[in-house]
Amino acid sequence: MPPINLAIVGIGKIVRDQHLPAVAGNDDYRLVAAASRHGRVEGIENFSSIDAMLSALPSIQAVSLCMPPQYRYEAAVKALTAGKHVFLEKPPGATLSEVEGLAALAAGKGLSLFASWHSRYAPAVEAAREFLAGTRIRSMRVAWKEDVRQWHPGQEWIWQPGGLGVFDPGINALSIVTRILPNPVFVTAAMLEFPENRDAPIAASITFSDAEGLDLAAEFDWRQTGRQSWDIVALTDAGEMLLSEGGARLSIDGRVVHEQPEQEYPMLYRRFVAIIRAGESDVDLAPLRHVADAFMLGRRRQVDAFHD
Amino acid sequence: MPPINLAIVGIGKIVRDQHLPAVAGNDDYRLVAAASRHGRVEGIENFSSIDAMLSALPSIQAVSLCMPPQYRYEAAVKALTAGKHVFLEKPPGATLSEVEGLAALAAGKGLSLFASWHSRYAPAVEAAREFLAGTRIRSMRVAWKEDVRQWHPGQEWIWQPGGLGVFDPGINALSIVTRILPNPVFVTAAMLEFPENRDAPIAASITFSDAEGLDLAAEFDWRQTGRQSWDIVALTDAGEMLLSEGGARLSIDGRVVHEQPEQEYPMLYRRFVAIIRAGESDVDLAPLRHVADAFMLGRRRQVDAFHD
Repeated sequence: MPPINLAIVGIGKIVRDQHLPAVAGNDDYRLVAAASRHGRVEGIENFSSIDAMLSALPSIQAVSLCMPPQYRYEAAVKALTAGKHVFLEKPPGATLSEVEGLAALAAGKGLSLFASWHSRYAPAVEAAREFLAGTRIRSMRVAWKEDVRQWHPGQEWIWQPGGLGVFDPGINALSIVTRILPNPVFVTAAMLEFPENRDAPIAASITFSDAEGLDLAAEFDWRQTGRQSWDIVALTDAGEMLLSEGGARLSIDGRVVHEQPEQEYPMLYRRFVAIIRAGESDVDLAPLRHVADAFMLGRRRQVDAFHD
Repeated sequence: MPPINLAIVGIGKIVRDQHLPAVAGNDDYRLVAAASRHGRVEGIENFSSIDAMLSALPSIQAVSLCMPPQYRYEAAVKALTAGKHVFLEKPPGATLSEVEGLAALAAGKGLSLFASWHSRYAPAVEAAREFLAGTRIRSMRVAWKEDVRQWHPGQEWIWQPGGLGVFDPGINALSIVTRILPNPVFVTAAMLEFPENRDAPIAASITFSDAEGLDLAAEFDWRQTGRQSWDIVALTDAGEMLLSEGGARLSIDGRVVHEQPEQEYPMLYRRFVAIIRAGESDVDLAPLRHVADAFMLGRRRQVDAFHD
């Protein structure tokens, strides 16, 4: 099959670090253009807006939208209206309803919409899912604790409404949890900590359950200095499962049983071409729905101002 | 067809005011039992818990769940697991995800789940929908302003997480708006006002749009004394539409074109029997999804403490 003419919109750190290498390493794509207010990609045509790009290059077949989530809907409507398949970086939008709207628009036009969750493609996630499917889970604890100054320096959008605050990384954990657990879960209580000078939480504690009374709790914190943790621990009838390093390594009772080099974005781009060729979409809103549920059901506490 | 053996759980004001008369006036139901921690219904069997009721009366075929939304999921799981059709008062739950779970559970068991939105059955709602379908909407304004002390005296659950605060009435407006508009909408910005001593908002301002850039704004306020307002105004190419009295009256350019006595709960119970007999469910989460989106995307402002 001929490669898909791909364009990328919103050129920032995640595009340089992940999207460009993943696309370059995949013969199913030909990267033809980029659109960005500030960024540029060498060796291809660059535009300052998606509108200019779509009208100048009708041969584009698919676009990856990597701008902050608050601006993604408008660009996605333009791309879908122009007949392009759409890859949405995570989170797929600023609200659940706008993404539902995009899914309906894509379906009506026979286009593929991909709400990507890169952490679901972390190396040990499928092994963890298989392990949990074969045992009884007594409890699960999620600890996603990192230093926002180290990982998101100067990213103002992340603190603004729709930027999700600590849920920007936390939603990666939720995308894994909703993949590896055998049953659907729901938030039962939450506490969100908002810095007094910010519109998004810097920390959150959430409890979840399922129809069978699962004991699941998650701690998200952006004030973690020293050791960073992206860990999911499950106590099960078959031993203690530790899915660590953001899904890269699986240990059972302290013994590493699965560890491979990380290939998240290459796998995302393989998935995207697969759904395009199958004429399907892949839009699972569960991770974002849990975040919205936590905002709706959660208590709020004001904490110290945060300065970058 | 023989009547459906119905039970009602959570006996409070809404049950006495609305459910009991609606059921009594509908030959398709036989009310056989009630379960409630505090309330009783004369002339039928009463139980102090849904568990006791379901095990004592296996002939029950359907249950209406009217307790506060924070307790509805657990009761619904029990009823569905026992093979009963389920009518959920609004809002259908404390989170979106738990209601998604109930819908999946009902579907798996071939049972009917009804997420009821009584305001959608207000007399003039369908007339408003038809009017808007035949014109271009320039803007829409929703004003849902009432005195919480008058309408929800002493209802503590409404101020607790999951009780939704001012969105408890506001979601009625959203259930109408999402019915009468021709296209799906999504929240674009929100400001939520929380009394300093409460975990739920007392007021909210929300703006919405749709794929075509609709100008839609809603004001919800629980501090309204004097004239109470449950109004939706649309400026259109065919004139100014006013849907007032919570959906009971439709006026175009000041002239009343549709007004009938309110029959919301009788219509809900007719709808419930229809979906049971058709083997279907009716679970539209759009109103609750907009509330969750408003919590997630909204800014928060602390306002004066509220004392009942």
